Amino acid sequence: MKRETRNAPSPRLRRAGAKRKRIKLEALKFDKDGLIPAIIQDYKTGEVLMMAYMNKASLKRTLTLGKTCFWSRSRKKYWTKGETSGNIQFVKSVYYDCDMDTLLVKVRQVGQGACHTGNRSCFYRKIGSRA
Amino acid sequence: MKRETRNAPSPRLRRAGAKRKRIKLEALKFDKDGLIPAIIQDYKTGEVLMMAYMNKASLKRTLTLGKTCFWSRSRKKYWTKGETSGNIQFVKSVYYDCDMDTLLVKVRQVGQGACHTGNRSCFYRKIGSRA
Repeated sequence: MKRETRNAPSPRLRRAGAKRKRIKLEALKFDKDGLIPAIIQDYKTGEVLMMAYMNKASLKRTLTLGKTCFWSRSRKKYWTKGETSGNIQFVKSVYYDCDMDTLLVKVRQVGQGACHTGNRSCFYRKIGSRA
Repeated sequence: MKRETRNAPSPRLRRAGAKRKRIKLEALKFDKDGLIPAIIQDYKTGEVLMMAYMNKASLKRTLTLGKTCFWSRSRKKYWTKGETSGNIQFVKSVYYDCDMDTLLVKVRQVGQGACHTGNRSCFYRKIGSRA
């Protein structure tokens, strides 16, 4: 089952979601609503695809599943990116910043793209242009 | 003065900071504290360097100066990146996302890098590694 193997989270990623790595996740600074912003970047091209928010549980789920999983602030529920659209993001690696209050998730984006508008990236408009 | 010309904001960027573009900036969604997250990316390599927060005034200043300018939530003051360290970020372009609540700023990073630790990027540590 080559495809499944390809999409499975790496052992290192899976271990990061497991119990023995909890301390490191606890050290991250979640805001007063329990959220941390996660920048999603294409692991190959470097294109920034989107930004969304994770809470501790959705970050753990992201590490365990190997797919990005967020917390929707408006709907107050978890969502796995692409669960309805098929535009899944397979996680390659997760970085955290010097202040430990922002994540950078490198992914392999499948399907049409990251944006609900049909664009590959959510950042498809430029300030100062007429778009 | 070649160097000054190189570092000057492009006419398009300057126009974006000027009065006639105010409506577009007003349309951006700043949070209840008047802030919007700005992802800072190297315009050439695609490396994500840092994330920080802008308010409306620091965004205008960024567009007018052609250098990234942020609002410090802890110190409650503006800061131009690199004003003391020399690690200035010259702005190449500014994008906003589909929800209009996040910015992506492509920059030419000069000096040592974006991070106060001396690393080029603030995202120098990976979850699941021993770093």
